[in-house]
Amino acid sequence: MPGRHFLNVPGPTNTPDRILSAMHRPMEDHRSPVFPQLALPLFEGLKKLFKTTDGQAFIFPATGTGSWEAVLTNTLSAGDRVLASRFGQFSHLWIDLARRHGLEVDVIEEPWGTGADPQHIHDALVADRDHAIRAVMVVQNETATGVTSDVAAVRRAIDAAKHPALLFVDGVSSIGSIDFRMDEWGVDGAITGSQKGLMLPAGLGISCFSQKALEAGKGARRNNPLRRVFFDIDDMQKANKDGYFPYTPSLPLLYGLRESLAMLFEEGLENVFARHRYLASGVRAAVLDGWKLKLCAQEPQWYSDTVSAIMVPEGFNGAEVISRAYKRYNLALGAGLSQMAGKLFRIGHLGDLNELMCLAAIAGAEMAMRDIGIKVEPGSGAAAAEEFYRTAEAETAQKAA
Amino acid sequence: MPGRHFLNVPGPTNTPDRILSAMHRPMEDHRSPVFPQLALPLFEGLKKLFKTTDGQAFIFPATGTGSWEAVLTNTLSAGDRVLASRFGQFSHLWIDLARRHGLEVDVIEEPWGTGADPQHIHDALVADRDHAIRAVMVVQNETATGVTSDVAAVRRAIDAAKHPALLFVDGVSSIGSIDFRMDEWGVDGAITGSQKGLMLPAGLGISCFSQKALEAGKGARRNNPLRRVFFDIDDMQKANKDGYFPYTPSLPLLYGLRESLAMLFEEGLENVFARHRYLASGVRAAVLDGWKLKLCAQEPQWYSDTVSAIMVPEGFNGAEVISRAYKRYNLALGAGLSQMAGKLFRIGHLGDLNELMCLAAIAGAEMAMRDIGIKVEPGSGAAAAEEFYRTAEAETAQKAA
Amino acid sequence: MPGRHFLNVPGPTNTPDRILSAMHRPMEDHRSPVFPQLALPLFEGLKKLFKTTDGQAFIFPATGTGSWEAVLTNTLSAGDRVLASRFGQFSHLWIDLARRHGLEVDVIEEPWGTGADPQHIHDALVADRDHAIRAVMVVQNETATGVTSDVAAVRRAIDAAKHPALLFVDGVSSIGSIDFRMDEWGVDGAITGSQKGLMLPAGLGISCFSQKALEAGKGARRNNPLRRVFFDIDDMQKANKDGYFPYTPSLPLLYGLRESLAMLFEEGLENVFARHRYLASGVRAAVLDGWKLKLCAQEPQWYSDTVSAIMVPEGFNGAEVISRAYKRYNLALGAGLSQMAGKLFRIGHLGDLNELMCLAAIAGAEMAMRDIGIKVEPGSGAAAAEEFYRTAEAETAQKAA
Amino acid sequence: MPGRHFLNVPGPTNTPDRILSAMHRPMEDHRSPVFPQLALPLFEGLKKLFKTTDGQAFIFPATGTGSWEAVLTNTLSAGDRVLASRFGQFSHLWIDLARRHGLEVDVIEEPWGTGADPQHIHDALVADRDHAIRAVMVVQNETATGVTSDVAAVRRAIDAAKHPALLFVDGVSSIGSIDFRMDEWGVDGAITGSQKGLMLPAGLGISCFSQKALEAGKGARRNNPLRRVFFDIDDMQKANKDGYFPYTPSLPLLYGLRESLAMLFEEGLENVFARHRYLASGVRAAVLDGWKLKLCAQEPQWYSDTVSAIMVPEGFNGAEVISRAYKRYNLALGAGLSQMAGKLFRIGHLGDLNELMCLAAIAGAEMAMRDIGIKVEPGSGAAAAEEFYRTAEAETAQKAA
Repeated sequence: MPGRHFLNVPGPTNTPDRILSAMHRPMEDHRSPVFPQLALPLFEGLKKLFKTTDGQAFIFPATGTGSWEAVLTNTLSAGDRVLASRFGQFSHLWIDLARRHGLEVDVIEEPWGTGADPQHIHDALVADRDHAIRAVMVVQNETATGVTSDVAAVRRAIDAAKHPALLFVDGVSSIGSIDFRMDEWGVDGAITGSQKGLMLPAGLGISCFSQKALEAGKGARRNNPLRRVFFDIDDMQKANKDGYFPYTPSLPLLYGLRESLAMLFEEGLENVFARHRYLASGVRAAVLDGWKLKLCAQEPQWYSDTVSAIMVPEGFNGAEVISRAYKRYNLALGAGLSQMAGKLFRIGHLGDLNELMCLAAIAGAEMAMRDIGIKVEPGSGAAAAEEFYRTAEAETAQKAA
Repeated sequence: MPGRHFLNVPGPTNTPDRILSAMHRPMEDHRSPVFPQLALPLFEGLKKLFKTTDGQAFIFPATGTGSWEAVLTNTLSAGDRVLASRFGQFSHLWIDLARRHGLEVDVIEEPWGTGADPQHIHDALVADRDHAIRAVMVVQNETATGVTSDVAAVRRAIDAAKHPALLFVDGVSSIGSIDFRMDEWGVDGAITGSQKGLMLPAGLGISCFSQKALEAGKGARRNNPLRRVFFDIDDMQKANKDGYFPYTPSLPLLYGLRESLAMLFEEGLENVFARHRYLASGVRAAVLDGWKLKLCAQEPQWYSDTVSAIMVPEGFNGAEVISRAYKRYNLALGAGLSQMAGKLFRIGHLGDLNELMCLAAIAGAEMAMRDIGIKVEPGSGAAAAEEFYRTAEAETAQKAA
Repeated sequence: MPGRHFLNVPGPTNTPDRILSAMHRPMEDHRSPVFPQLALPLFEGLKKLFKTTDGQAFIFPATGTGSWEAVLTNTLSAGDRVLASRFGQFSHLWIDLARRHGLEVDVIEEPWGTGADPQHIHDALVADRDHAIRAVMVVQNETATGVTSDVAAVRRAIDAAKHPALLFVDGVSSIGSIDFRMDEWGVDGAITGSQKGLMLPAGLGISCFSQKALEAGKGARRNNPLRRVFFDIDDMQKANKDGYFPYTPSLPLLYGLRESLAMLFEEGLENVFARHRYLASGVRAAVLDGWKLKLCAQEPQWYSDTVSAIMVPEGFNGAEVISRAYKRYNLALGAGLSQMAGKLFRIGHLGDLNELMCLAAIAGAEMAMRDIGIKVEPGSGAAAAEEFYRTAEAETAQKAA
Repeated sequence: MPGRHFLNVPGPTNTPDRILSAMHRPMEDHRSPVFPQLALPLFEGLKKLFKTTDGQAFIFPATGTGSWEAVLTNTLSAGDRVLASRFGQFSHLWIDLARRHGLEVDVIEEPWGTGADPQHIHDALVADRDHAIRAVMVVQNETATGVTSDVAAVRRAIDAAKHPALLFVDGVSSIGSIDFRMDEWGVDGAITGSQKGLMLPAGLGISCFSQKALEAGKGARRNNPLRRVFFDIDDMQKANKDGYFPYTPSLPLLYGLRESLAMLFEEGLENVFARHRYLASGVRAAVLDGWKLKLCAQEPQWYSDTVSAIMVPEGFNGAEVISRAYKRYNLALGAGLSQMAGKLFRIGHLGDLNELMCLAAIAGAEMAMRDIGIKVEPGSGAAAAEEFYRTAEAETAQKAA
């Protein structure tokens, strides 16, 4: 198909040309004396990204799933109990992964379309009088439903419960796009992948551990059947401290990460977050004001600035919108998953994005919906989004521009 | 500025990733025994593009301006008389170039917004009883006003006048996007650049000569002060016949040209033309039906399928639309030139393009117009274009998709 | 430093421009309807590479270390006993990894500079009357010492011992460069990484399982503390069968793998192997006949066609050769590891390589050796290698050329 | 053919990956408000490259041949007389081009293998009492024979003759590799191409004019049949002064030029020149001391630091060396041209080059020579070059390293 493909799944996101070029380079010896000049600043850059001074960042040649595994296996022992809120496919999968590692997971079920309820977490922790719960697992941005949870509030709930549990956060579709504050929020294990806010191809599983998590893990890992090799942070730490890796790293992705971090810091993290909010608000204007449709996220407090899950009207199948958009308009949208299958389609709006890219996605989704019979007004999505972008608070728009 | 830039000037056009990758390669010896395997098929491919079996194609490491020069200096002598219609900045510049080469140009002035009038050409040729006019110069697509002239009709006019003049056609912004038939239309010299329908960076001045032009040029070039070296087709022919060039060619552009031709032929030239018409029609729907604005092209017969020049209402400056679109929305539009300066802005819609790219440009232009106070209805451009694309004749859309 | 860097470590190897370009492309939706057109042929191509029709190939977004982990955790249970020969740093590390997974490893120590001794394996298996040994682990090419073991002979030893143990082979620095025959040799688990014979960046952990291994693993994985998620081949199989992955794959590496396999098959696997042998023989001629030095590999039967480990004379430190070559001549050589630290340096000669690349490495190593005082004759390495290449058996050279 | 191709023709030279990546980018509007941020520094950078503060640099989307044409047509009138030394194919071609433009060229014939003789030039100018000679044309580095002329001495000769002739210098294969000083040497027109010392693909014809040349040209161009459009520096100057071009420039090459200049200035021009001398000296050591062959350049004063033309012994054909090297060893060497056809082969050693690249070329040439029966000692070339590189004056080597 001629012309540029429009990629609006919530990951992988569009990799900027600048990053693609940074990755296009000959191989080199990862044991060379100059290699640490590449590696060491990456760890520092990631700490800045996670907003931590005390934590330690790790880069595994893996994915977000691998990062999940890295955080759990390096801090917990088989049979340990953890607490997790479930409100979408990705919070579900993380729970499933924990269980398959032999952890006992206390699940707090929340309605899909909402997020982690700090009060429920608080209550569960208070009920855990002997502090058997070793960790609380929260997905900051549930990619399946377009819902962002309030991690700071979860931290306050844990503190209010005076519970020593570690706080683990899945920031796969938030970190680098939505504010995340490792130290301030007392997060002990945070993870992300390379293919979302970092605008890279998949292939890096990135995690950050607090000192508390590193300590807590020590005993666990000492005589812990969860301990392994590939994701062992002891091996990593030993090599990383001099700027090396215990096995061959993926050089293009490391060079890409260097460029990605440079781009984020040049724009300024706060500006990046503001831009995501600004662009997301335009998409939501199209959905709510233009098309008069509903988001899966039930209330504004849950609205995600990286992905919008749009409910299709009764009698229609979201999968058909996606199929039509892909085949006819060169537009990739995200599908409804699990209990949301068919009920919605998702527009990812994260990473290297601007107004016209969002407007193109809106126009494409609009045509696809009309093609399968959904009665949205032609041009209504564009009209609402355009007017939002045009009139957005001067400062925000300025920064975004 | 984050996100992809939207390039909607009428050239350079968007270079597809596939071509960019084809150009990204190490240098090589242009005198090597395998080099002709690259070069020779390019000449064949270009003949297919120009729709000629008898003509001969040339590739100069130059631009469209250089191609103009190549056609004139290799066929005419100083003092020769030529006939040209002027109806826009590029037909004007070609005339100017001819004059600066010492040619005498009889200019037929046509209103900007119209194109070459075959009747006027016919009459001028009939009046030229002693056949002093050596060539007729026609711009197939006047990029400055978004006007396409009917080259076949010009040929019929020349024939009706029984005049032996050569027919030279500037196809810079048409060839590869709008149908062009060298042999069928009896075109003797046709030119294009690499940065338009061929989707390459600028840097190649491409021309095609009929046998008649090659012959006519022989005497001319023999004792002709117009004869030079860089654009001398004798040198070119001598080297080209074995697949070489008289001086170092630009390898990346040759590899890019190979990929470009492959892409055009894979899609099918007729499909490429249909796609341009289809996409252009959507843009025109936005302008005329959505925004209720006028095109510079005065009537449908002149509508260009590669660029639309949109008149801004009285009291507004097209340059401000362009400036706003560029700075605020990351969208490059074309300016009004010469007598059209400020009166219009142009949307280029040629090359590697699809519906959503056009819709993004429409949305961006719409926002920019509203920002400077032009009262177009929000979303009206998108609505009109979307409905056109959605409902376009099944076959066309199918081919385009 | 100006000019091209010469990368002669035994991995990562030089990535050809053709592959780099294939990896340079925009991201796309890995859940799209066309994605399987990329993924499915990769699995078929890998089977051809492993020379198996019955086996099943897996692609993890990881490394060779990850592949080791994948093979062991998907086939064995904690406490299982395995047999392994150790004769270099990489056979050592694999044993270490197995132990850290809770496996009991019976180690057969062989002198570094030799490889797996089929007789020793045979004897150990015969001694294992109750067939407690679940698997035999062999490193086909020990990268640390430049030694290739005879896997076919190991298979014969296992068969002669009438032992049902699985046969696992580390082919990281051999597969794609040195002949490997999964089915013919009865290999049950074979692994490689992307950054060696496949000429890709690191980032893919590739493995191949025989049906026997898949079966054997089923019980193991059912109630097996080794079972995890990231490397779980059940999840992989479930998604792979339709051409998808259970989590986001690294698109550039998959596109790179497609190109890599295409290049290997275009050249022809047997020709690739012959070229490696031919190029390696030239390097060995330089070492043995030119420089009059010794290889770590003690006898010709052990000579590796992908890496040569060259012993420096008494009183010299191999690390100094490497450091000098790197800093002064832009040449990356491999170091001696563990008990070979300082005693040797290694020239990797695998992947996308030709005569002049080998000769450049030889010249660079020669200069670096002389710079630190090793008395090799100037030009002697080049002389020996050149004469070998020039006079190599016509057919081999022809194929290589 | 597997492995990297070794490109040792004297242009195009190897384009560094850094430049290739800089050229790999999407197209953009060359009329945009930010475009001058790219263009203006290029002109300043080129002035630094030409070592001029008063001169003005021009960038044509053409080649060195085009630059020749640009210098002559913008400064001279048809019928003007110029003086030129001829001592190789490229000095010959420039003379031919001048004649084909209608200039009268007084040719001083020098033996091929020597260069411009300042005394001969002096004498010719002294003999031209009425100062009819408008310009002296000198090729600084004759690529065909590997001969460098002394431009400063030519200037002294002109001054000694008290002749007002302009001094034009072809620096195609010298500028950016061998010292060139526009202002200090009083050069009035200097040209180069992009594909030599600038390490870019061909496609840019670069020239620099002194104020005297600009002035001298004014009258000439006013009523001068040499005046044209494509190479008209008036059009260029008018657009360039604001950072634009009169027609569409080749964006990738401009971005490449920016990177090229950055690389040259980062290394330091004097270091670049020293590196070329150092690398060339190694090649000459191989030729003279190792192989015991002769250079075409008759004496050390003529030795070129960018290309060595190596005489093959009587009875052998240089073309066979080249053919063998290309087909069997993936090495591109330069051919003998015109009266030197078959008598020599050339090793280009300019641009992005280092010791091992030179040694690879030496080894390849050595094998090719031996293959066709030339009795050079195996390894003798490498031995001589290696020992030169190893022991080159500490400071030079340090800078080069």
